[in-house]
Amino acid sequence: MTLRVGVIGTGMIGQDHIRRITHVLSGAEVTAVADADAATAKEVASQLRTASVHATGNQLIADDNVDAVIVSSWGPTHEEYVLDCIAAGKPVFCEKPLATTQEACQRIIDAEVAAGRRLVQVGFMRRYDAAYRAMKQVIDSGEIGAPLLYHSRHRNPSVPEAYTREMAITDTAVHDFDVVRWLLDEEFVSASVLVPRPNRHGGDLQDPLLMLLETESGVVVDVETSVNIRYGYDIGGEVVGEDGVATLAERNPVVVRTAGRFGGDVPADWKVRFITAYDTEFQEWIDAITSGEGVSGPSSWDGYAVAAVSDAVVEALHTGSRVGIDLAEKPALYVK
Amino acid sequence: MTLRVGVIGTGMIGQDHIRRITHVLSGAEVTAVADADAATAKEVASQLRTASVHATGNQLIADDNVDAVIVSSWGPTHEEYVLDCIAAGKPVFCEKPLATTQEACQRIIDAEVAAGRRLVQVGFMRRYDAAYRAMKQVIDSGEIGAPLLYHSRHRNPSVPEAYTREMAITDTAVHDFDVVRWLLDEEFVSASVLVPRPNRHGGDLQDPLLMLLETESGVVVDVETSVNIRYGYDIGGEVVGEDGVATLAERNPVVVRTAGRFGGDVPADWKVRFITAYDTEFQEWIDAITSGEGVSGPSSWDGYAVAAVSDAVVEALHTGSRVGIDLAEKPALYVK
Amino acid sequence: MTLRVGVIGTGMIGQDHIRRITHVLSGAEVTAVADADAATAKEVASQLRTASVHATGNQLIADDNVDAVIVSSWGPTHEEYVLDCIAAGKPVFCEKPLATTQEACQRIIDAEVAAGRRLVQVGFMRRYDAAYRAMKQVIDSGEIGAPLLYHSRHRNPSVPEAYTREMAITDTAVHDFDVVRWLLDEEFVSASVLVPRPNRHGGDLQDPLLMLLETESGVVVDVETSVNIRYGYDIGGEVVGEDGVATLAERNPVVVRTAGRFGGDVPADWKVRFITAYDTEFQEWIDAITSGEGVSGPSSWDGYAVAAVSDAVVEALHTGSRVGIDLAEKPALYVK
Amino acid sequence: MTLRVGVIGTGMIGQDHIRRITHVLSGAEVTAVADADAATAKEVASQLRTASVHATGNQLIADDNVDAVIVSSWGPTHEEYVLDCIAAGKPVFCEKPLATTQEACQRIIDAEVAAGRRLVQVGFMRRYDAAYRAMKQVIDSGEIGAPLLYHSRHRNPSVPEAYTREMAITDTAVHDFDVVRWLLDEEFVSASVLVPRPNRHGGDLQDPLLMLLETESGVVVDVETSVNIRYGYDIGGEVVGEDGVATLAERNPVVVRTAGRFGGDVPADWKVRFITAYDTEFQEWIDAITSGEGVSGPSSWDGYAVAAVSDAVVEALHTGSRVGIDLAEKPALYVK
Repeated sequence: MTLRVGVIGTGMIGQDHIRRITHVLSGAEVTAVADADAATAKEVASQLRTASVHATGNQLIADDNVDAVIVSSWGPTHEEYVLDCIAAGKPVFCEKPLATTQEACQRIIDAEVAAGRRLVQVGFMRRYDAAYRAMKQVIDSGEIGAPLLYHSRHRNPSVPEAYTREMAITDTAVHDFDVVRWLLDEEFVSASVLVPRPNRHGGDLQDPLLMLLETESGVVVDVETSVNIRYGYDIGGEVVGEDGVATLAERNPVVVRTAGRFGGDVPADWKVRFITAYDTEFQEWIDAITSGEGVSGPSSWDGYAVAAVSDAVVEALHTGSRVGIDLAEKPALYVK
Repeated sequence: MTLRVGVIGTGMIGQDHIRRITHVLSGAEVTAVADADAATAKEVASQLRTASVHATGNQLIADDNVDAVIVSSWGPTHEEYVLDCIAAGKPVFCEKPLATTQEACQRIIDAEVAAGRRLVQVGFMRRYDAAYRAMKQVIDSGEIGAPLLYHSRHRNPSVPEAYTREMAITDTAVHDFDVVRWLLDEEFVSASVLVPRPNRHGGDLQDPLLMLLETESGVVVDVETSVNIRYGYDIGGEVVGEDGVATLAERNPVVVRTAGRFGGDVPADWKVRFITAYDTEFQEWIDAITSGEGVSGPSSWDGYAVAAVSDAVVEALHTGSRVGIDLAEKPALYVK
Repeated sequence: MTLRVGVIGTGMIGQDHIRRITHVLSGAEVTAVADADAATAKEVASQLRTASVHATGNQLIADDNVDAVIVSSWGPTHEEYVLDCIAAGKPVFCEKPLATTQEACQRIIDAEVAAGRRLVQVGFMRRYDAAYRAMKQVIDSGEIGAPLLYHSRHRNPSVPEAYTREMAITDTAVHDFDVVRWLLDEEFVSASVLVPRPNRHGGDLQDPLLMLLETESGVVVDVETSVNIRYGYDIGGEVVGEDGVATLAERNPVVVRTAGRFGGDVPADWKVRFITAYDTEFQEWIDAITSGEGVSGPSSWDGYAVAAVSDAVVEALHTGSRVGIDLAEKPALYVK
Repeated sequence: MTLRVGVIGTGMIGQDHIRRITHVLSGAEVTAVADADAATAKEVASQLRTASVHATGNQLIADDNVDAVIVSSWGPTHEEYVLDCIAAGKPVFCEKPLATTQEACQRIIDAEVAAGRRLVQVGFMRRYDAAYRAMKQVIDSGEIGAPLLYHSRHRNPSVPEAYTREMAITDTAVHDFDVVRWLLDEEFVSASVLVPRPNRHGGDLQDPLLMLLETESGVVVDVETSVNIRYGYDIGGEVVGEDGVATLAERNPVVVRTAGRFGGDVPADWKVRFITAYDTEFQEWIDAITSGEGVSGPSSWDGYAVAAVSDAVVEALHTGSRVGIDLAEKPALYVK
């Protein structure tokens, strides 16, 4: 009844998922951990009821005491672990990216299609956010007519020193790419990038960026990434339809009036803004597996498609040109 | 490790708590149920993994397989079950009201004080709502100075036929009474009621009401109850301090612009508005017990004090006069 | 064609009206001034094209070069000037109060009724504010059903030393009294006052106050006055109907996000908040006179009724009791 | 003292300006009119106190009874009238466009520079809107750091049949071009256009458009025009700086809650949204002339620069490429 979960990668994100499964959510238990840094894995396991520590992710996947796997290790390791889970027939939740190249994503798709059922879910948590879900409901209701434009804003107060200009695309905007694909229920076909004057807080970084995408049906999407904007973590979205517009609303719980101003807090970081979305994402994943319905969240295909968009936007940044996006044919397994 | 919970009263609210513990929260399991209607209890138990069905609440409390108890049965039965839990040394979560008279509440306090530790928590869920918590943080920070006034709005789209005019106080406004006591950290000392012209949707009911309360330090609190207002479930709160004001914000996730209007949804009922607060309330209750820290939420004293306020407001409604509120001395057990 | 206006009282408010007529509005010119302080009057006149200076208000009213009069002198002088204008058959705009007692207001009504046409308009400028007008439109449309409750907030950052506790009623809340009478289109029948703990910024002043009024049809109205609240000038209003609620909206033009907060400015004082209302009030007054339609704004009756409410609220403050309000019969002249 | 204004072009817009000067604003009077349609001009004049009707705009400009001129005739006639006013040394307010080509605008600049003082003001009314002025104040204060991005939204419920796809640029977006130049205090250097799938309400029109511009310092500006969006007239603007963001706020005066929704009105058209801006624009123009300070609003240079941007965006629409914008050197007359 209780889903026995193994976690590969026990860094900050892995530990947060372990905390969530252990202390917040229902129906699952972490029974095994593995990490490149064995000491960390041991330390994390010691705080759990009965979790074994494995030397490698592959051993963890093979553990009979593990029903399902969370991969929150370093990106370049994802492909191997996900393929291994598919081979073992075990559901796997893989943090983004699904893999570091489109080819690797394609290999995962091929393996999953060969397995004949969905086992992989990718960590695009915005699909589980109440505001995005409400926006999707508005779009799907037809209330604002067919979507024609989408404006997306992705702002971070700051980024670590190791953050490169490509990461604004591959690490930051990928969430925008996925959630817009999901909201509009279609794929992107081209990308270009505009590079404004740089924010002085960003050092040599080309920040902000304005990415411009087009979908199959011709919806134009602009994505602003501002990753050194200091004031807070701020996510904006607006879909413009033929008959109306839907906009993500301010989410602040209390408005204060003092000293000549009214106002409220902006979230300090993504954990504050999306904590509930993460909870919902994992609870639905656990429920989907334990109920026997099987995973239905963001798929290998989504991981692949976002990788393709991401590659195109990076190329557009490097070349300064409009870059086309060609996807492989979508296997029936991923067609709803 | 897993808290074994017995639920007395498996009606709509009891079933919702069972669903929450079983499918949403972490660290607890429903292992026993009881209900005046044995068939319902049996039906509910059949959907759980291994829950025994008891003929009476008292037998459930005595069950060795029950670590903690939720009382969600009919109000007049609360006193007996809560006293029984105290006698058995088992933590008990009691839905409001704690008991139907101040005297009964006092008997529970006496028993708990004699037991020497807090075992009782009362179901005032607003204290777990993110917006009220943010408001409390603002008050406690001193940012708006000492509170002087509080405006509270409690609106329901409609109420069942059996709803009497006193229930606007005893069933509806009690949540406002408790949350304002908690926000201001002090007790009420007097109450009066103004009766506006009645809403035509309310039949013979005196609806809306405007209740007026004063606290020990002289804060004036007005509570509007409008329980037939049709448009939705709408909770408002504003605290006016010496230097500023804090107001509960709009909680709608998405704003839509169509047909000449901008706007968003108002919650349809209290479940929509407070679902996350209920989840937080029970998760914190479970954690407080399993961690050994002991319950720290709304106490027997809070149940007693709210009963006293509620009685005074009912008397004020009946007499048309200002009614004083005299509380017994607060036992040390309940002083933070 | 151009209305020749005489202004009695050239203090701060009078000068603001002169500025408005001279530099902002269309169709009028200030042709005469008078003030108890002759030097000020002379100084003000010297900045106008051709304005004569009169020794007394009565001489100004008699001036053939004056078509209409604005009375912005000290309250106790209002009655005499207004009666004089009526006797002279000249339209008069009188700043609040119309007169300092109900009896004096009654004498003005009697004189105007005897004159057989409306000549007097009282300076209740909120009726000309776009937000209150939009609220009145919502009420009159029937969209929210019959009004049952009204919540009014009147906040000032600070008041001068000479401000007495009664002035929160006679000087501040009178605007709330009038605008609610106008919105609901009915009179008040009773009043009481609650006195919260005092704001430390107010010295010995009893500030804030919560005034409670009832109308003929049973609408309950609460009026908060907070006149030392420091953060700004803030006017709030909410009407609760049988089917819905209408609330004055935030009026800030731009929202800024910096340093962890979103927010905007609160008006610093009433001039900022109501400047457009004052402009509209006087332009409509000028147009009503020059078009020959005659004045239709707040009338002598409104001045009288607000004085009666104001007296009752002061008595309620002094006695601590609920005080009834008995108005004389409304002359046909004032029935729309 | 009273400015005597002649109006060339007495169509809908001209009539609105005449109404404004006659019935709303202070310090001016319409003393002469002219229109290609003599009957309309005569009809309009008949409703004024004493306005002469001229057979041609040039005769009106020569009229000694005319101190200043408003040109609200058909666009292709603007150049001639403006040049004539400059020759006559009379201040002229010219509705946009200043002229229909960059070359024509340049001829006006040359004439005005030769005249040695500013006589021309162009009708970019957004600079007089309270919300844009508040935004400019925020930018100029340095509170949000140097601007890096600007998002502009320009939505109309519908457009007349004669509206061509270029008019989304030359007639609609020109207001966005000018106001952003003014807010950022710099010129645009390049433009491109993205063409989303068309709105079904727009027939063959390419609507919406997403225009992308860059300024001298590298600020990237995106301008959405949606001119068939049905729901209302909706203007949005957001400037993204290094340290924060400033956004035009919702301007609705009253929020209504009924039938499960909260919300308010969106303006039906530009007249509702910008009526106060038009009033302010013309009052400041009148005051600038009568005070002797001389006009200081949008200049011939602004008219020229916006024409250059507009031409570039049209070319970008036609070619699908990024188009550079080369402006002539800015004469000292237009440097603040």
